[in-house]
Amino acid sequence: MKPEQVVYFDNSATTAVDPDVMTEMTPYFLQRYGNASSLHRYGMDAYEAMEHSRENVAKALGSSPKEILFTSGGTESDNLALQGFAFANRKKGGHIITSAIEHHAILHTCEFLEKEGFSVTYLPVGPEGIVSPDSLRNAMTDETILVSIMMANNEIGTIQPIRELAAVAHEKGALFHTDAVQSVGKMPIDVVRDGVDMLSLAAHKFHGPKGVGALYVKKGVQLRPLTYGGGHERGLRPSTENIPGIVGLGKAIELAISRMENDTARMRSIRDKLMNGALDIPDSFLNGHREKRLCNNVHVRYDFIEGESLVMHLDMAGFATSTGSACSSKSLEPSHVLTALGIRKERTHGSLRITLSRLNTQEEADRFLQVLPAVVGKLREMSPIKSWDDYEITGNEEEEECHTANE
Amino acid sequence: MKPEQVVYFDNSATTAVDPDVMTEMTPYFLQRYGNASSLHRYGMDAYEAMEHSRENVAKALGSSPKEILFTSGGTESDNLALQGFAFANRKKGGHIITSAIEHHAILHTCEFLEKEGFSVTYLPVGPEGIVSPDSLRNAMTDETILVSIMMANNEIGTIQPIRELAAVAHEKGALFHTDAVQSVGKMPIDVVRDGVDMLSLAAHKFHGPKGVGALYVKKGVQLRPLTYGGGHERGLRPSTENIPGIVGLGKAIELAISRMENDTARMRSIRDKLMNGALDIPDSFLNGHREKRLCNNVHVRYDFIEGESLVMHLDMAGFATSTGSACSSKSLEPSHVLTALGIRKERTHGSLRITLSRLNTQEEADRFLQVLPAVVGKLREMSPIKSWDDYEITGNEEEEECHTANE
Repeated sequence: MKPEQVVYFDNSATTAVDPDVMTEMTPYFLQRYGNASSLHRYGMDAYEAMEHSRENVAKALGSSPKEILFTSGGTESDNLALQGFAFANRKKGGHIITSAIEHHAILHTCEFLEKEGFSVTYLPVGPEGIVSPDSLRNAMTDETILVSIMMANNEIGTIQPIRELAAVAHEKGALFHTDAVQSVGKMPIDVVRDGVDMLSLAAHKFHGPKGVGALYVKKGVQLRPLTYGGGHERGLRPSTENIPGIVGLGKAIELAISRMENDTARMRSIRDKLMNGALDIPDSFLNGHREKRLCNNVHVRYDFIEGESLVMHLDMAGFATSTGSACSSKSLEPSHVLTALGIRKERTHGSLRITLSRLNTQEEADRFLQVLPAVVGKLREMSPIKSWDDYEITGNEEEEECHTANE
Repeated sequence: MKPEQVVYFDNSATTAVDPDVMTEMTPYFLQRYGNASSLHRYGMDAYEAMEHSRENVAKALGSSPKEILFTSGGTESDNLALQGFAFANRKKGGHIITSAIEHHAILHTCEFLEKEGFSVTYLPVGPEGIVSPDSLRNAMTDETILVSIMMANNEIGTIQPIRELAAVAHEKGALFHTDAVQSVGKMPIDVVRDGVDMLSLAAHKFHGPKGVGALYVKKGVQLRPLTYGGGHERGLRPSTENIPGIVGLGKAIELAISRMENDTARMRSIRDKLMNGALDIPDSFLNGHREKRLCNNVHVRYDFIEGESLVMHLDMAGFATSTGSACSSKSLEPSHVLTALGIRKERTHGSLRITLSRLNTQEEADRFLQVLPAVVGKLREMSPIKSWDDYEITGNEEEEECHTANE
């Protein structure tokens, strides 16, 4: 079976590029390939395309085009926001607050900043993954310069009360960053309404190309660049601009926003069918909040089986799913997100994430639900553990791959 | 006139994507779009494509695939090499050596490292832009941990004696990095033969896509990452891998290497025609070395005119050229490269760079040479300066754009 014959239910990992996005991008690879800094018409043409894309991104977020920086993706945007702000604003204070369930692009960056002398508070979350504004208020100090809380979680899909959290950050004069990588096209975003000072996004999560993202930086916010070179992106992100990628991002976000109302309604309806069906299986549990949840996310866990085996058996049956975050999928550690929800380690392992895009159909969900119970049943038959009384704790001490900076 | 109807002579700024490269990339946008970290077959398919590309890059450089890291381009590769090595090896010493004519991705990174407490020596060059191994030897100290000298210059095309320079660096136990962004496909590269420990390249300089590059890092060399996140690229370059871009890089480098002998001979012949024709105009001078020169680079200067005006008039006449580096093209400062050659500031301004790719033809060169003398003549007629005796020094004090980190 070729990949393209498999039903793709892993859209929080990445999505297919929309054919209309591809059509926009293609001429910028082949004919309109100028360097946006060049003075001749190839250069001016590329520059105009880039600025048009910047307007589309700004419009989608409710910001001004001048507040949009193009990057290589969500990880770089998160790093530029956190490292960039921390190093440029050290004099104002050395304390940063984030949550325990952020993406590793935030958490590992915070750990690096701790090594560099900053102090970081990792806020706990409730059993459904919500960060409480009160817990944020209690953690704020006069030294707090930045709060970073994701708009919606990449594993469990929980949506955070961003507006309230940003307001709390501002009460004490800190800025508010949000990782919106999973949110674009799935929920309305308005940085002015929500009081967001910085926001990260990545094109490949909403049918744009990989290798390109953006960081919204509110006017007046000072950052230190991660890299140095030519003066591109106001000196904050030097490098020959990735024009085809930027054009693809601009088109993808324009499409995502213009179709959002219909697309999210459809995804929500497929999601609910999948969620209900998946939870009809005995000894199953929902991870995350039932309502405050991304329209495209189903995350359930099944006692007594391994999520990796489940993903592989479903793949053989023609369905691409995941256990949780793609970037941690080769790690043997339990998910830091599920652990933060208070789920016991041995119960985190049987998790299954099904994430939708606008390309998925009710018919795919029906077919999946015809297969899932049998696969779970078969794995449970093979499992040596039939009840938690059988379970002996055997912690895995292997270092998580994400931490290994060198071979 | 549309950009694509203009003869493109600015291939050191960027190049057209080869249609064969596009054909390789396209399925990875549309159908084979998996995240290389995913466990299902979309993910495995993407991972295999990435590793195939890594092998192609390694083959082109004479390295092992495990020594290749994918990045977002030349600037990031240079920064990862310099910042990454400096911060990871601070205990071994705090001195770095580079040359005065490096790309800003090296020079501005070195300036940042100076602010971080490192000391940097910027080696002078001879009048033709060559870094002398003796001057490197004299600059080496017991504190020197890294030497970074570009393989060939992006403005004047001068090729450096890399093997000799690397040997001098190694005499004192320092490592040797080279920015080979302009060299791939233009000259044979072999990191083992030349003793190179780190090497930067960018796909868009050899008919691959923008937004993707690579850094060769010799086995055992320790780096600190620039960004933190998932464990991609051995933890040194986290981010969902840009699979279409990486596939494009792999195909582009494979093509560039396999065609190099014929392509470089053709480019050299067109270059020589252009160089000779451009120098037939009175009061013209060659920038850089006549023989130790990239096969695709012509860089001349004309007294009494402004390079920017020349580029714009040539653009109107149907030829896309540049004054020097694209990333500095909107800066009013004189080129740091020409200044380092000892050319007086007022004489640096009339420079014209013509850079070829394998797509250029003799016929384009003929047409260009029919136009160039008249354009130069017309600009000289308009120029208030007819001899250097007329010239009054009016230094431009505007801050160079590349230094402006914020609006």
